[in-house]
Amino acid sequence: MDTPHSTQPSIRDLLRLPPGGPADLAARPTDATPGFEGTKREALAEGADTGRELARLQERLYAASTAGDRRRLLLVLQGMDTSGKGGTVKHVVRYFNPAGCRIRAFKAPTEEERRHHFLWRVANALPQAGEIGIFDRSHYEDVLIARVHGLVPPPVWTRRYDEINAWERMLADDGVTFVKVFLHLGFDEQRQRLLARLDRPRKHWKFSPDDISERALWPGYQEAYADALARCGTEAAPWYLVPADRKWYRNWAVGRLLLEHLRDLDPQYPAGTFDAERTRAQLLAE
Amino acid sequence: MDTPHSTQPSIRDLLRLPPGGPADLAARPTDATPGFEGTKREALAEGADTGRELARLQERLYAASTAGDRRRLLLVLQGMDTSGKGGTVKHVVRYFNPAGCRIRAFKAPTEEERRHHFLWRVANALPQAGEIGIFDRSHYEDVLIARVHGLVPPPVWTRRYDEINAWERMLADDGVTFVKVFLHLGFDEQRQRLLARLDRPRKHWKFSPDDISERALWPGYQEAYADALARCGTEAAPWYLVPADRKWYRNWAVGRLLLEHLRDLDPQYPAGTFDAERTRAQLLAE
Repeated sequence: MDTPHSTQPSIRDLLRLPPGGPADLAARPTDATPGFEGTKREALAEGADTGRELARLQERLYAASTAGDRRRLLLVLQGMDTSGKGGTVKHVVRYFNPAGCRIRAFKAPTEEERRHHFLWRVANALPQAGEIGIFDRSHYEDVLIARVHGLVPPPVWTRRYDEINAWERMLADDGVTFVKVFLHLGFDEQRQRLLARLDRPRKHWKFSPDDISERALWPGYQEAYADALARCGTEAAPWYLVPADRKWYRNWAVGRLLLEHLRDLDPQYPAGTFDAERTRAQLLAE
Repeated sequence: MDTPHSTQPSIRDLLRLPPGGPADLAARPTDATPGFEGTKREALAEGADTGRELARLQERLYAASTAGDRRRLLLVLQGMDTSGKGGTVKHVVRYFNPAGCRIRAFKAPTEEERRHHFLWRVANALPQAGEIGIFDRSHYEDVLIARVHGLVPPPVWTRRYDEINAWERMLADDGVTFVKVFLHLGFDEQRQRLLARLDRPRKHWKFSPDDISERALWPGYQEAYADALARCGTEAAPWYLVPADRKWYRNWAVGRLLLEHLRDLDPQYPAGTFDAERTRAQLLAE
């Protein structure tokens, strides 16, 4: 849907993966910049404008929640190691008032988390009414790493796609706007990023020999991603594919995606439930 | 303690309320700028430097936690309505990587929270190892509003001071560095801020007639604050009084307090647990 605010084509339309269709990842370039034809400098400048509007929209979303509006937004970030999930969180949160954000990075499940259904830990981290939620990894790991490493038998991960769809549908009906983003990184670009980490001793703590063994499983991950994107790209919660080799484009695109979704929500300031004139007189008469 | 980084007097020494001593709030100006003699513009410029160093220190704190360092920092913000708790959170978080921050604003306790001990909900919101925690209001409400409004009988709130001290001591021993900040706002400045909200219809959702009735209880709150600051200003977790009439000073001072505490922690990047040369060769040989 287009909005009166924008003269640009909808970035949602450009980046949305067709619900249910196959996600042919190999055919999609990782260094493209769909929807943006300017320079990196222009993208950064536009990002500042986007930021100001996002901040205003977030305040209205939060304000509306104080009058009973249950709507909230959940940004889900998925992508291979070094695809920039953490960097995107850092960038995106700058736009918002962090007090109204619920940010969660999901790592290997704890012992307690493993004792619950896989959706339990994400359900506990959801944004509340009026909030912006941000997931760095998510319940999708349970059909990605869990599948590639065979952490659960195939019948278990196979049924998870439907479980995810049903759960997301239920939340969408309850006011959650999903913005699910796959950061599509190139195999060569990942090598460059891993080498860059190795070159900087201060980045070594971010590095694990697992990063190399995980990289060897690249084809399996791409296949698992393609399935997750195809099977869980629904009308209620579509997937967006953001080419991620260029960090500035990735930031620009995620900012625009958030902007278009929040504009559509068009949250409104509630009217005050008091007599402003009388209250002003009270304060002045003290 | 002074640090080699700083040529300025320690802001902690200037703002710390003497442990156990009486906190004579009326004698402390709310529009002062202790420790800072420059202009607002200079404070903002210094804030940018502070921000860069805070970001570096936070990364080191987080990195150290990946190698078992349990330390974390908890900023506790208390103050009267409109004293700028939310504004301070917004400002402070800009410095940090939000993914490593655990931010929580405490409102009137929910039904579930009321069924637990008053420390339950704050205990659930604590920063984990390597994180920066930020509380907008806190367990101190249970000796402030709870006392002023008589929500619990005096024997209950009276024993809470010792309970808070024992709990904070235990957490300090477990690696939590407390930075407890009282934003000291003037009665007249609060009137100005409330009037400013009334002047802007878009701010009306932030306004409640309760703000006026709470304001009428100002003396009771000041007394309750003075007691909380005196009784719970301990060696393990002292209170800092930040004059809060000037927003730019408040932001500057809280930034400096965080900086001095994090410098003292002096967290270190852990060494990599792998052979960087061999890993580089592996990547290049693919």
